[in-house]
Amino acid sequence: MQINETLDRYMMPAEWETHERTFVSWPVKDSMVWPENYDELCGGYAEVIRAIAAFEPVTVIVNPEQLEKASAMCGANVEFFEISHDDAWIRDNGPTFIWNANKKLKGINWRFNAWGEKYTPYDLDNALAPKILEMTRTFSWDAPIVLEGGSIHVDGEGTLLATEECLLNDNRNPELTRFEIEALVKAFVGVDKIIWLNKGLYGDETDGHVDNIACFARPGTIAMQVCFDPDDPNCEITMENLMRLRSTEDVNGRLPEIVEILQPPARYYRGKRLTLSYLNFYFVNGGLIVPVFGGDAEAYDYAAINKLQAIFPDRRIVAVDGMPLIKEGGNVHCITQQMPLGYL
Amino acid sequence: MQINETLDRYMMPAEWETHERTFVSWPVKDSMVWPENYDELCGGYAEVIRAIAAFEPVTVIVNPEQLEKASAMCGANVEFFEISHDDAWIRDNGPTFIWNANKKLKGINWRFNAWGEKYTPYDLDNALAPKILEMTRTFSWDAPIVLEGGSIHVDGEGTLLATEECLLNDNRNPELTRFEIEALVKAFVGVDKIIWLNKGLYGDETDGHVDNIACFARPGTIAMQVCFDPDDPNCEITMENLMRLRSTEDVNGRLPEIVEILQPPARYYRGKRLTLSYLNFYFVNGGLIVPVFGGDAEAYDYAAINKLQAIFPDRRIVAVDGMPLIKEGGNVHCITQQMPLGYL
Repeated sequence: MQINETLDRYMMPAEWETHERTFVSWPVKDSMVWPENYDELCGGYAEVIRAIAAFEPVTVIVNPEQLEKASAMCGANVEFFEISHDDAWIRDNGPTFIWNANKKLKGINWRFNAWGEKYTPYDLDNALAPKILEMTRTFSWDAPIVLEGGSIHVDGEGTLLATEECLLNDNRNPELTRFEIEALVKAFVGVDKIIWLNKGLYGDETDGHVDNIACFARPGTIAMQVCFDPDDPNCEITMENLMRLRSTEDVNGRLPEIVEILQPPARYYRGKRLTLSYLNFYFVNGGLIVPVFGGDAEAYDYAAINKLQAIFPDRRIVAVDGMPLIKEGGNVHCITQQMPLGYL
Repeated sequence: MQINETLDRYMMPAEWETHERTFVSWPVKDSMVWPENYDELCGGYAEVIRAIAAFEPVTVIVNPEQLEKASAMCGANVEFFEISHDDAWIRDNGPTFIWNANKKLKGINWRFNAWGEKYTPYDLDNALAPKILEMTRTFSWDAPIVLEGGSIHVDGEGTLLATEECLLNDNRNPELTRFEIEALVKAFVGVDKIIWLNKGLYGDETDGHVDNIACFARPGTIAMQVCFDPDDPNCEITMENLMRLRSTEDVNGRLPEIVEILQPPARYYRGKRLTLSYLNFYFVNGGLIVPVFGGDAEAYDYAAINKLQAIFPDRRIVAVDGMPLIKEGGNVHCITQQMPLGYL
């Protein structure tokens, strides 16, 4: 038993810390809402993977029968782990890495139930995190709570951002109370303060993952996608969340500085409102991979990119086509999982 | 998802809260250090069970082949659950019940590894708690940490008492740090403050369970077994723990009042120092079951009983023979597990 007040504390590093690599799970046709789009979806994945691989190594988790196709599409700086999985959003069922002040790593194995039992089967996806941790020789710590990586963001200094709609949803942990969920999340992620937003994007089938509406840009600064059109249900959601952010201090006593990024125009696919979000961008070493949507969103795309470039003047921003991914419900952040550069 | 600040908080009630019943696991001959003492040990168990059953219902967990013997020995007010188990110290592998302000119950299923892998097999004992919770129709909450019930005491108001020797021992949770162990224990038991004692009794094979040296008598008051003989290794342990208790506030800002109970004279069995302790007593509804040791300890037995009666003027104290149990390493508290009177 090591007893050292500095080294004893393990916490989830902010996403902007240097990555050892990024994990992506290759899509599975059988799990798709629109399987006829499989090739288009794979193309979207490959574009994101190639974009990331220009900054850092990428490890793609692939079902054995897809290895050939995936490796042909992904290009260089990519390695493959053949692990059978059900679906392909590794942000949500992958491990959450934590580290201590010496950057010694551990991995959290959350329980995964496919966003409140929305899709089956999910047993392979629930079993994925410990397999990845075993392959990276990282200690796997089982968290007795259903939680998806996309439902939390951290500033790396002890504050966590989440939505009540998701973390407190009855379809995740019906037997646990808010108090218990807070205590467990704090214990595993190593934070002292949770800033609770209310809801995520309107129509988000993840029940309001925070990674589609807001994230830390740096400690003390939160970027948030906003909507000020009173006829759009995202307007009321924006107002409530802005009110909360403006009145909630982080663990260091700071009221967050808020960077507003305007949402693109509403877009539909086969009758369903898509959850377009620039906030689903992903930090890579020295860069930022940002989904854009084109068409009538083009002016918004540029505005978002410009605003992000202003917050992150030292990062090279790469825009990727978010449409192939969002038709299946997620985007760049949802299909990635970072392993920070630390020690085993 | 129920969101209610009062009802959301589940915590372990103090042992003195009214019990619905007490659980005891009937001893298993194969697991004994001295199997030739099996009948004597069963006699010791039966004496404790009969003593408790005069105050409240007792449920005895029994291996099927021992049901007849056990039921013949235990008398009235006792029911039996036939559940196969390896060993017989249900304080350590049984569920820890927690409740909220409405006394709604849940049960914690800690991991059990036979006190740091000291005995095998222990897989049946590790699986016992969820079986009991299922039979009592109580939600079972899996705690991802090795912990024995005998290694913690609570005051029911948010303070927990434990020893570093046990909870931080490398043979329990080698991958977890002190910070993580504290956070998890607080999250599950529902406490805000841990008062850390140093070591438990000299020679205690549990690696210093707190339930052999100290317990809360009421919020703000801690009873402690002390030794002031400088030639006895328990003297240094006493000094260190007294110093800590005198300088550590509980969660409500109180320095504890300390009630000292003098340890009985050292006694040996087959060359090994026995861990005689009056502090291994057990609260029952309206009473207290206290182990005594007789012989050269008789004057100490009386002194301990008198001191406990002075702290608990309204409880009927029943002394039982602690010798059959302590030769196997535990005592009254170790073989019992309370289920508080609450709601499901």
